[in-house]
Amino acid sequence: MDSTSTSARPELTISGFQRLIREMYLEKDIARGIDGTFMWLMEEVGELAASLREGTHEEQAAEFADVLAWLTTIANVVDVDLAAAVRKKYGAGCPGCGQLVCHCDDAGKP
Amino acid sequence: MDSTSTSARPELTISGFQRLIREMYLEKDIARGIDGTFMWLMEEVGELAASLREGTHEEQAAEFADVLAWLTTIANVVDVDLAAAVRKKYGAGCPGCGQLVCHCDDAGKP
Repeated sequence: MDSTSTSARPELTISGFQRLIREMYLEKDIARGIDGTFMWLMEEVGELAASLREGTHEEQAAEFADVLAWLTTIANVVDVDLAAAVRKKYGAGCPGCGQLVCHCDDAGKP
Repeated sequence: MDSTSTSARPELTISGFQRLIREMYLEKDIARGIDGTFMWLMEEVGELAASLREGTHEEQAAEFADVLAWLTTIANVVDVDLAAAVRKKYGAGCPGCGQLVCHCDDAGKP
């Protein structure tokens, strides 16, 4: 689990991806506003759902990338640091039970 | 933009976060299945929307973290490598116009 990547490329960090998306889209997304940008996120979520039903693995991967990109661009618009946010919420274990391997009740959210 | 983090902690990679979520939730998410897990993602998307309307910055950050976690856990269930997926789709520029700073028509998706 702790083995380093065998790829020669440095691993993509959450912050690095957020910077990439900021550079690529922030100006347009600020001009469009949160509501309109959220609508695009929803469209991508729908496409992800469709791909999970009947898409190939490659199509599913592309839809996950799109949802992540639109989620990230909205985080940029409201100035949320995604890496810091997930560290705070999930860095110390499941936010429900506090354990690294979740033992929350099955009916519960996590 | 290329400056290194001033934090002593190593930067969180997309793959590292995906491994963390796998360890935390995969067993339960496989048992629940994609459909039920997608429903939880949708609930979190709704909470994100509400926080964007009227939440504090801290609440928004927590909701972004939750959406990212549920998106990641579904990627784990269908064995999609999120880092590879975003590299492929966004690593060479906007998938619409091919440029690092998007110049797609404003009516277009990105």
